[in-house]
This record gives sequence, structure tokens and C-alpha cells, in this order.
Amino acid sequence: MRVLLINPNTSEEFTNRIQEIANVYALPTTTAVAVNPKTGPRSIESVYDELLSSVGTLEVAISDQDQYDAFIIACYSDHPTIYALREITDKPVLGIAEASMYVACMLGYRFSIVTTNEEWEPLLWDAVRHYGLAERCASVRSTRMPVLALEENPEDTYDLILKTAEQAIAEDGAEVICLGCAGMAGLDKHLEKKLGVPVLDGVVCALKLLEGFIGYGLTTSKHRAYAQPGYKPLIGFSEVFQKVYRAPDQNG
Amino acid sequence: MRVLLINPNTSEEFTNRIQEIANVYALPTTTAVAVNPKTGPRSIESVYDELLSSVGTLEVAISDQDQYDAFIIACYSDHPTIYALREITDKPVLGIAEASMYVACMLGYRFSIVTTNEEWEPLLWDAVRHYGLAERCASVRSTRMPVLALEENPEDTYDLILKTAEQAIAEDGAEVICLGCAGMAGLDKHLEKKLGVPVLDGVVCALKLLEGFIGYGLTTSKHRAYAQPGYKPLIGFSEVFQKVYRAPDQNG
Amino acid sequence: MRVLLINPNTSEEFTNRIQEIANVYALPTTTAVAVNPKTGPRSIESVYDELLSSVGTLEVAISDQDQYDAFIIACYSDHPTIYALREITDKPVLGIAEASMYVACMLGYRFSIVTTNEEWEPLLWDAVRHYGLAERCASVRSTRMPVLALEENPEDTYDLILKTAEQAIAEDGAEVICLGCAGMAGLDKHLEKKLGVPVLDGVVCALKLLEGFIGYGLTTSKHRAYAQPGYKPLIGFSEVFQKVYRAPDQNG
Amino acid sequence: MRVLLINPNTSEEFTNRIQEIANVYALPTTTAVAVNPKTGPRSIESVYDELLSSVGTLEVAISDQDQYDAFIIACYSDHPTIYALREITDKPVLGIAEASMYVACMLGYRFSIVTTNEEWEPLLWDAVRHYGLAERCASVRSTRMPVLALEENPEDTYDLILKTAEQAIAEDGAEVICLGCAGMAGLDKHLEKKLGVPVLDGVVCALKLLEGFIGYGLTTSKHRAYAQPGYKPLIGFSEVFQKVYRAPDQNG
Amino acid sequence: MRVLLINPNTSEEFTNRIQEIANVYALPTTTAVAVNPKTGPRSIESVYDELLSSVGTLEVAISDQDQYDAFIIACYSDHPTIYALREITDKPVLGIAEASMYVACMLGYRFSIVTTNEEWEPLLWDAVRHYGLAERCASVRSTRMPVLALEENPEDTYDLILKTAEQAIAEDGAEVICLGCAGMAGLDKHLEKKLGVPVLDGVVCALKLLEGFIGYGLTTSKHRAYAQPGYKPLIGFSEVFQKVYRAPDQNG
Amino acid sequence: MRVLLINPNTSEEFTNRIQEIANVYALPTTTAVAVNPKTGPRSIESVYDELLSSVGTLEVAISDQDQYDAFIIACYSDHPTIYALREITDKPVLGIAEASMYVACMLGYRFSIVTTNEEWEPLLWDAVRHYGLAERCASVRSTRMPVLALEENPEDTYDLILKTAEQAIAEDGAEVICLGCAGMAGLDKHLEKKLGVPVLDGVVCALKLLEGFIGYGLTTSKHRAYAQPGYKPLIGFSEVFQKVYRAPDQNG
Repeated sequence: MRVLLINPNTSEEFTNRIQEIANVYALPTTTAVAVNPKTGPRSIESVYDELLSSVGTLEVAISDQDQYDAFIIACYSDHPTIYALREITDKPVLGIAEASMYVACMLGYRFSIVTTNEEWEPLLWDAVRHYGLAERCASVRSTRMPVLALEENPEDTYDLILKTAEQAIAEDGAEVICLGCAGMAGLDKHLEKKLGVPVLDGVVCALKLLEGFIGYGLTTSKHRAYAQPGYKPLIGFSEVFQKVYRAPDQNG
Repeated sequence: MRVLLINPNTSEEFTNRIQEIANVYALPTTTAVAVNPKTGPRSIESVYDELLSSVGTLEVAISDQDQYDAFIIACYSDHPTIYALREITDKPVLGIAEASMYVACMLGYRFSIVTTNEEWEPLLWDAVRHYGLAERCASVRSTRMPVLALEENPEDTYDLILKTAEQAIAEDGAEVICLGCAGMAGLDKHLEKKLGVPVLDGVVCALKLLEGFIGYGLTTSKHRAYAQPGYKPLIGFSEVFQKVYRAPDQNG
Repeated sequence: MRVLLINPNTSEEFTNRIQEIANVYALPTTTAVAVNPKTGPRSIESVYDELLSSVGTLEVAISDQDQYDAFIIACYSDHPTIYALREITDKPVLGIAEASMYVACMLGYRFSIVTTNEEWEPLLWDAVRHYGLAERCASVRSTRMPVLALEENPEDTYDLILKTAEQAIAEDGAEVICLGCAGMAGLDKHLEKKLGVPVLDGVVCALKLLEGFIGYGLTTSKHRAYAQPGYKPLIGFSEVFQKVYRAPDQNG
Repeated sequence: MRVLLINPNTSEEFTNRIQEIANVYALPTTTAVAVNPKTGPRSIESVYDELLSSVGTLEVAISDQDQYDAFIIACYSDHPTIYALREITDKPVLGIAEASMYVACMLGYRFSIVTTNEEWEPLLWDAVRHYGLAERCASVRSTRMPVLALEENPEDTYDLILKTAEQAIAEDGAEVICLGCAGMAGLDKHLEKKLGVPVLDGVVCALKLLEGFIGYGLTTSKHRAYAQPGYKPLIGFSEVFQKVYRAPDQNG
Repeated sequence: MRVLLINPNTSEEFTNRIQEIANVYALPTTTAVAVNPKTGPRSIESVYDELLSSVGTLEVAISDQDQYDAFIIACYSDHPTIYALREITDKPVLGIAEASMYVACMLGYRFSIVTTNEEWEPLLWDAVRHYGLAERCASVRSTRMPVLALEENPEDTYDLILKTAEQAIAEDGAEVICLGCAGMAGLDKHLEKKLGVPVLDGVVCALKLLEGFIGYGLTTSKHRAYAQPGYKPLIGFSEVFQKVYRAPDQNG
Repeated sequence: MRVLLINPNTSEEFTNRIQEIANVYALPTTTAVAVNPKTGPRSIESVYDELLSSVGTLEVAISDQDQYDAFIIACYSDHPTIYALREITDKPVLGIAEASMYVACMLGYRFSIVTTNEEWEPLLWDAVRHYGLAERCASVRSTRMPVLALEENPEDTYDLILKTAEQAIAEDGAEVICLGCAGMAGLDKHLEKKLGVPVLDGVVCALKLLEGFIGYGLTTSKHRAYAQPGYKPLIGFSEVFQKVYRAPDQNG
């Protein structure tokens, strides 16, 4: 099987890290390819960033759609392209936040998310609630460092992540830690040894879930929520975006 | 005061209708201007459509930002540009769905939303829950007609909207009806007479709320959720999008 | 338009303050009149106080009903006369607590309420839940001073309110502050400058919302929850209370 | 022990029925006395009715306070005098709606409430949610007959109650039926035989619970929510209402 | 009436304590008999313990079923035998946790549970949510002492319970304290004097509730959730367990 | 890796079916072994059945613990042995109900469960809520046939399952169907073709998830909820059950 991991920001360092991690954990029969869009913000820390990353991300996914069996949106958020892709394709699509949270629920009673800048706290609580997991989430804690500090200052940010996770365990009752940023990829097992509880990298969670989904022959439901978008004229976008719609005579 | 009403799709007919309605209800001291982006889908019926409409919508809002006191995203959804705009500006920003639902809660105990195609049902339930109003929402019912039927076939769609609203009142216990599509603008008072309960057009609700907010001197909170996005490099977008970010030395 | 602001306690000082605030913010076309009942407690700090204030409050509202277009119950609570008035009239009726909370949801992600004595904490959480806004409320914090301290000792109570709001912002993540007592009217803009986040006076919120509702021609729904009460004999009340009921032959 | 059952409306027929039922089920060591206020509406079908019944009901309770060990508010609602009385006294106080719903949760998984006029549906759903029992309530169904039809037309209303309860069991999955009006007192065992599931009269539920509470020596908590109301001047009410407050020097 | 109190662990000291408490509070017409199974763990602190205690507990209940009018499962948990017994019999069955929590809701606005070892915190939160009472529960706090410390070291554990309850009142806003372990039986009134708020022993709560249920003639609903289990072959259990099922020809 | 699938009932036909399905979907590197306890009921349709199946199920799991890397409880319920096993081992443990529901949430917006006898409806709603997924569950529908009809009368039950699933899709808005009984194993792909939406067999879902968990090196968290049970004397059980506890000197 072939999985496309789309890092929706334009940090190639993050993309490389995601590729390395995927290589470590993929089954021998899996080809995992990490890419990022050509346009958009270097990191994602707001809804504004999410939206500027969306068109480039969709373009990558649509263009390469036929060559892959499953798709991962490798940003730790309830990124709207997850849902747009599910509308476009019946192949399985996963975000790394949902993947890690559902896995966490099967390993412990309550999990905490350790993320980067403070603005992610309300955004990730929104995601938690959207997945229905408010009672299972012990806390969302941020290191209050920007995302790109993970590139620029890895040692200090590692220490902050460790300390923040320790607080989540001791003060909030977390039994599992979810790493709340794709840029934290690769830290999971180190932290796990220090913390004594499972630590989840959403990229690996999504990859392993999708290998299972494909192994079982699962597809995205095309009934109701993720039905293919109805035909309509589209201005200012290349043909690749237009042909995603149903044919004009197949509407509603 | 000056309010910018952005219809995020590219249907100029919808934009004109929104302008007409705004003209009817604006205070003498209010200048309301309806616009739509130059690019994007002609109607919005999916997350895919929302995302393709986002960049053009943001561009309109950012470009004209200094000339307006408040902004309306005139699509009946939890459109992500509402939140992106709140991050960008401290001027008040409203979506027409949230505006009509909060108003509905002050006029009756439970409201129903009457919308267009069936895919909107799960999307609007998501919005209802995001606003915290699940217990106040009696139902989300769709006419199962595509959005553009409102342009092409207004009589039949009017009859379907009426019938669907009657069912919401009789079977679901709705006490207020929210018109779940910007394209239904102008039907409210006709339907109200037939139905005997308040019928809300989200465009008018948002306009009247914002006139009140400006009259009271209210602004969007810039603490936490809607803080200005931190600086980062942005590829493939015009300078207008880059300058929205904080200065590079003001991160964190 | 004419709005009646009913302060349901018997503190004329509070009524005067409400009148002053309304004068500042009312549109030129709005006549806002603040009154209080002749009977009842001087302040409202319990359900017992609410009930003793209800008959006098209803009497004021019913007697002057024809001269006003909209009604405000100017006590920061889920005061039961809000609902009784909605049953009696189809003109819009707002409580100042609900008004400020719904407005807060459109300016930030989470709000806190700063109130007076500790007993208000459970009562206001009840109100928050009743409006469906539990997930949007960061905290309800009390200064632990009685309501009438706002009359007797304004400087100290101002300092306490400021300090309590600062805690709500720093420790609970509040992005908007709702002033949880009608007696705090007039403090909003001072606090806003100190705190750096929007601070809402419920009296002004309700007034501006109602100006919008009247401008849009909205009425209270008379279907189901707020239907006119059915006819029944009433003992020990003046004729004004009896004639509120439907005619005897219009029951059921 | 002595229990005061206050029917908050002015229907002596209802009061007599409540007295008879209490006589049937009271322990030999219990004296149960049913009374009603001298003023107020003949039946309670709205918040307006609740408020007009409150002052008379409180007066009865306060006047006779020393002669009783426990109090029942015998109206099937979340009647606000329940909470006012808990503030006034540390003796146990129960409403018949909460009593029957909590008992229902210990006899089956989900219960339905069968009530009178349609306006009670939203009011009782509010009560259900206030008690935290939304997931345990299968439905609130009304016979759509006014309360006083129980006096005037008992046979027809009995048939309607039976039919409505049958629908709740067959269509909504109710396992226990709560009779949603004090005027239905005495019908429980007849209906139980026909329906094959437990049928609860809230008056009996409240009486038996209070006998248990007194047997165990339980009191209402005076910490926080139900603390004695602080001192304040009260205008237009007899001395009996004023002396309920704390002494002036015991505020705060 | 005759009530069987089953302590599902094998600590005879706990059983004796339960018997003593029951003797103190039972009505003269009530015979309360405390027993424990012959097999199983000496204390219950985990789901594993619950399951090992279940077969012995069921055996006791089934064997003596005809001699009793009501049953109490005297372990402070959502013990699964509560539900199994309700399926087996139409006599009322109560767990001591649910009994104390529902009683707490009628005495104060929010309660806290003070329990033993830390693992009970998530288990009791599960129970709280299962009963629908999440909003009424201020906190679940553990002394972090194992259950059997109540036998071995009563003075120290008493001090810890007192201190933990004081924290729940001061920091979490608890208005009522539920003693979260059957082994705490007998401490309620001592703690109540120190704490100034009601303190509930679940054994007494369950006993007094059941006396009321029997006095009212209530039974467990046999419709849907607690229907008698359908016939099926059972291997490796004595005849007493097999005959609990419906007859083979009464399935479906 | 080696996975133990424990069918907790004593139907060898069900066990064989589970083994066959596991053989079809297991990775080449996975050895999946299906077993059932020697004692207990032939099918599980009630809490009583669950409890009678628990000791035998635990015995199987504990005895073979060292030979397996992961465990599946192959009963479509929130079977309590799932939690007991998580306390006993740090290897991953999954129930087939939770596995299929979390997978369903990643393939569609709302799922329905199609189960056997009516008593499962409340039990499975409890499970849905326990997993936090109430808003994602469109309905729990039963065919109203006993579990063993799946052995005895496969054609008719297949038709009923198909019809029930069609209703869930058409009337409740289900986008994914979860087969709510281990005995339905093998029907998924047939139904999927007829229904046009994904149909999930919980056995396969759990197997594929666990292959992913093991591939990622995940373990059950031993902090708080699933900590190893503390030492205590155990009466009437073989040594294998006693040695699961911590050593006596490692308590607390």
C-alpha cells in the first residue's frame, strides 16, 4: 500500500522528520511518502495559517490522488483539509490529532495533549470536543514556545515538553501523553522512558491505523457528511480543482 | 459606521440580494457594503467549497480592512474565515449562522434551521454544538435542493422551505426558524406570516448585532484564541497576506 | 422605540445608575426608562430575593406594557420574570446576564463572570448551563462582597473586582469579562483599559441587542414555551394580573 | 415527624387529594399535613403562574416553619420556592418532580414524564437537565389538556394519560412512568396494572424520601448555594418575610 | 420488611460494621441482614476485584432471594452486580454509591466523594457520569490509602478523611460529602460535626431509600434494560444460577 | 506477534467463526488464536451473562498471558474484563465494540450499531456514552432476535440485519454500520455491498488496531486507572488469580 503524508506547512525540515519517522514504523509492504505544499506558511499556529495552507495542501492531495491508497494530514489540529479530502475521495483520510486521541483512549482512561504556543489550547479543546472526547481529555497544556522553536532550539524545547508533560501527569491525572505538534515527531520514546506512561506521536498513530484500515479494505463513507461535492462553477482555480466536483447532471 | 458584508461565494446574484437586504435594515448612520471574492466556487455546500472560498474571502477582508468598522461573513455556516478574521483584526466579526442562532435563543426556547442540501445537516449540527447550543436546537432540516436552486427555481424552493419549516414546527417543536442559507435572504417576513413564529435571516441578525456592538464600542478580544498570528515566512501569497503577521521580533 | 429597564430590586441608586448608563448608549431614536418596583428587597442575592422581587417587577411591567416596545430585566441572573414576561407579551424581553454572555461568545472564545457574594457562583453556573454555554464559560468568580457594598464602599469593591478579573484572565483563560451585577454598571470601560480584554456591562448589551431586535421587527415566539398562560381563577391579586391570562374560552 | 406538603396553587380539591394520598402512605409515626396558599392561581401551567404562587407559598412555609421537620412543594415542576425554602431553613425540602425522577433512576434505566398542557414540555425538559438527568429521560409527553381538566373531566383525562404513557413505553423506550402533575395523585397503581411498568406519584416519592432523610438525621447543607440570605431592607412585605434574613451584622 | 445488605468483599469486619450501622438506622419494622460472599477478595479496589467478587455476591443474593424484599450492594462503586440483580429480580436493588449521590443532590447543589486509593478516582468519575450527575459532583478526592487501612489503622485514616473532606469543601466548593467506601461506615456524624456540612454514609442512604420504596410498593422495572435474561445453556455453574434464566420457550 | 482473541461465551461455533475471520485478515507476521472459557453462558445478552462469563474469561487470559502480545475481548459490549485485563497487564487490550466505534468515527460522521435482542439497546448506549461518542452515534437498533438465532437461523437473521441497517441509514442518518454482535462476524462485506456504506466487524477492527499498536510498540498505561491491583487476600480462587496482585509490600 502507498500512503501520502502531507505536512500542510512549508517547512521541509518538518517534512523530512515526518518521512524519517514513517520509514521507521511502516510495514515492509507500505510505501510512505511525506510531502508539503509549495505555498503557504512555514508553520501553522492559527486558523489563519490553516486556511493559507489549505489550497496548497488540497492541490498536492488531488494531483497525486490516484497513486495513493490513503492520506494523512500531518498537522496536529482538526485541520479542515481532513474533511475536504474525505469529500473528494473514498480512500481513508486521517489527521494526526484525531489518530493519536482515539489511540490514547484505548491505552488509558485520560490523556493530555502537550502543544506549543498558547493559542493552540482553545483550538485543540475545540478539536477534542469535536471528536467527542472532552471527558477523556485531562488537559491541553502548551509550552508557550512557537512551533518553529522546535527547529531552532531543540534542546530547550525538549526540556519544556518534558516538564509540561510531567505537570499534566502529576496535576491533571494524565495517563497517556499526546505530542501536540508534528514537529515533535521522534521525541516519543525518549519521553516515554522518562515519564513512565505511553507517549504518542500522531504521525505514527495515523500511519499504523491506516495500514490496518487498508488491510481490512475500509473506505470513507460517501453517504451524507462526506458525499462528493455537487457541481458548480469555480473561478480562479486550475482544472484539477474543478474536476473534483460531480458532473453537472449528477447534482442533488 | 461602515460594515463589510462578504459573501464568500462568487454568486453576484447572492451578493446583490445581501446588499438589498442590508439596505433595508441598516441604520441611517450605517453604510453596509456587500462584496464577494473574485475567485472561488459559485456556491458553498461542503468543506471543500469553504476552503476554496477562504483565500479570496480573506483577501477582500484584509485589503479593505481599514475602511470598515465591522465584518460579516455572509455564508450560513461555521465558516473558518470568521475565526481567521478575528485573529487578524480587533474589529468585531460575525458569521450569519452564529448571529441568527444566538438571536433565536433570546426569542424562543428552541429553534430549527431550514437549509438546502442534505450534506449541510451534519455540518450545521457541528456548528450548533460548537456554539454550545445543542439543547436549544430542535432540528436541522434540509430541503434537499442544491443552493443554486435558490437562483434558478425560486418558487419551488420557496414552497419547499415553507413545508420544511412547517414540519420543524409541528414535529420537532421549533419555536423560531433560522433560514439556513444566505441565498434565502428576503424570505423571512413572508414565511413569518405563514408560519406564525419568528423567522430569522442571519444577514439581518448579524448586521443589527454589529450596529449594537459598535454603538457600545466593543472589540474582539485579542487574548488567547484570537491573538494576532505570530510571525513566520509565507510562500506564494502577496504581501498583503504576509503583513498580517506580527513583526518577527514580537513572537512568543 | 421605547425600552423599559426594570431593576427588580428596590435600590433607587441602582436604578439611577442604570438610567445614566442607558442614556449614554441609547440611540437618539430610543427612549430608555429605568424603573424599579415599589416593593421587594433592596438587593438580590438569593432565590428568596428573586421571588420577593418578582410580583412587584411583574406589576411594573404589566402596568406599563403598552407604552414600551421592549423590556430588560436588569438583574444579573436568570431571573424568572424574564420568562414570565415572555409568556405575557410578544415584545422582546432580555435579561442582562443572557445578553452579556451571548455577546461575550461573539467577541472571544471563553468568558468569565465576576460577581459579588459567593452564593452567586452556583446560581450563575446554573444560568450558564441553562443558556447552553458551559463550555464557553472559563469561570464564575465572586469578590465575596455583598451586593450593597457597591453602594457603600465603591473604591474597595472596584479594586476587588479588578483583582478578581485579573485572576480570571491569568488563571482561568478568560478572554472576555462579564460584570456579574447590575450594580457594577459604569465600571466597564475603566476595567477594560486596565485588563486589556473586553469588559461587558449586561445593561448596555441588552439595550443594544434590543435596539437591533426592534430595528429588525423581531418578536418573542408565542409557540410552545412562551405561549400566553391559559385562563384560570386568580386569588388575591389585582385585576391587572388576572387579565394577563387568555380568555376563559380560549384555553387548551 | 411532621411533614408539611404545600400545594402551591389554590385548588383545594388538589390539596385534599394530596392529603388523602399522604394519609395512605405515611408511616404511623409521620404526621403529614397538606395545605395551600390563600392567594395565587388555581393551577400552575407557566412561569407566570409559578411566580404568582411563590409569595403565598413562602408565607405558608415560613409561618409554620417551627412546627414541621420537612417540607414538600407539591407541584410537578422545578418550582423556585424549593430553592428559596432551602435557603431559609436547614430542614430537608423536596419538590415532587425531582423526588420522582431520582427514584425513577433507581428502578429503571430511562423514565418518561406524562404531563398536562404542551407548555410543560420545555419547562420539564429544563428541570430534567437541571437535575442532570437528560440521558435518563426517554421523553416528556403531554396530554395537551389543561391542568384543571383533571378536576373537571377525570375519566377522559385518565384515558389520555394511559394512552400517552403507552406511547412513551412503546415508542420512546420508557421503563418507568412519572406522573407529571400533582393533580394526577391517586392514579399511579391503576396505571401500573395496565402498563406493566412502575408508575410514580411524586407526592408519595417525596414523602417516603423525607421520612428516610429524617430517619437518618439529614439536613439541607447551608454552605454556599443554600446559605441563609444576607440582611437587606425589604419593602412591602410583612415582618415574617424580613426576619428570614441574617441579622444585619452577620452579612458577608 | 427484610433487606439483605451484601458486602461483596470477604472482610467480615466490614460486614459487621455494616450490620451495626443498619441496626442503628433501620425502622422497627425492618429486618436488615448484612452478609458477605464466601469467596472473593478481602477488599475491592479495581475492576479485577469487582469481577472476582461478583459470582460469590450473586450466589448469596440468588440463594436467599425469596426471604428478602430488597437488596443493597454495599460497595461504594457502580458495582456490576447491581444491574445483574435488577435483571434477576423485580424487587428493588440499590448500590450504596448511587444511593448517596442522589440523596446528596437533594441536600445541596454540589457534592464531593472522599474515597481511599487513587485508582478509585477514575472509577468513581465513571459512576458519577453514569448516574448523570457530572455537573453536580464538585470532586472525587482520594486519601491515597488502601481500603484495608480502614481496618488496620483507623485513627490515621480518619484524620486523612477529615483533611481530604476539608479540602473538597474549601477548594472544590463541595456542599455535601459522600463517604466513598463502605469501610467508612460509622464516621458520618463525627465528620459532620467537624465539617459543618452533611456527610453521607451510602449504607444508611440505601437502607432508608429502600424502606421508602417498599413502603410505597415500588418494584424494579422489568421492561427493556432489566428484563429477565433469556434462556441459554450455562456451563460450570450450579443449578441455582441456571434457573435464573427464563424458561427455554419464553425467549424473544 | 501473537494475539489472543477471547470469545467470552461458551459457544464454540462463535469461537470458530472468530478464528476464521482472524485468519482472513491477520498479517502474515501475526498469529491470532481464538479461544473461549470452559465455563459460563453460551451467549451474552445481559449484565448477568457478562458477570458469569468474567471469571472463566479472566482465567484464560491470565493463564496464557505470557504467550501473547495483545488481547481482544470478542463480545460486542463494554465487557468489564476489558478493564480488568488492562489492570493485570501492560500489553494492549481491546474490546470489539470500542474498536469498531472509534474506527467508525474515522470513516464517517455518524455511525449506527445493529445488534440482536432489545436489552442490548440501553447497554450499548451506555457503552457509547462511556467512550464519549454519544454525538457520533446515530442510533442503536436491535433486530429483536436472541443472539443464538445467529447460529440457529442464519438466513432470516441476515435479512433482519440488512433491513435494520437500511432503516438506520435512511431514518437515522447513519453513514457507517457497526455490527453489534461477535456472532455477526463474516457478514460485513456482503452487507457493505447491499448498503453502500462501510460495515464494520469489531473483531477485524480490534485485530488490525492491535497489529498497529504492537507495530508502534504501544502499551497500556499503568498510571492511575489501570494500575496493577494492590495486594489483598483472595478466598476460593486458584493461585493464578492471587498472583495477579502486587506483592504485599508494594501496596499504596
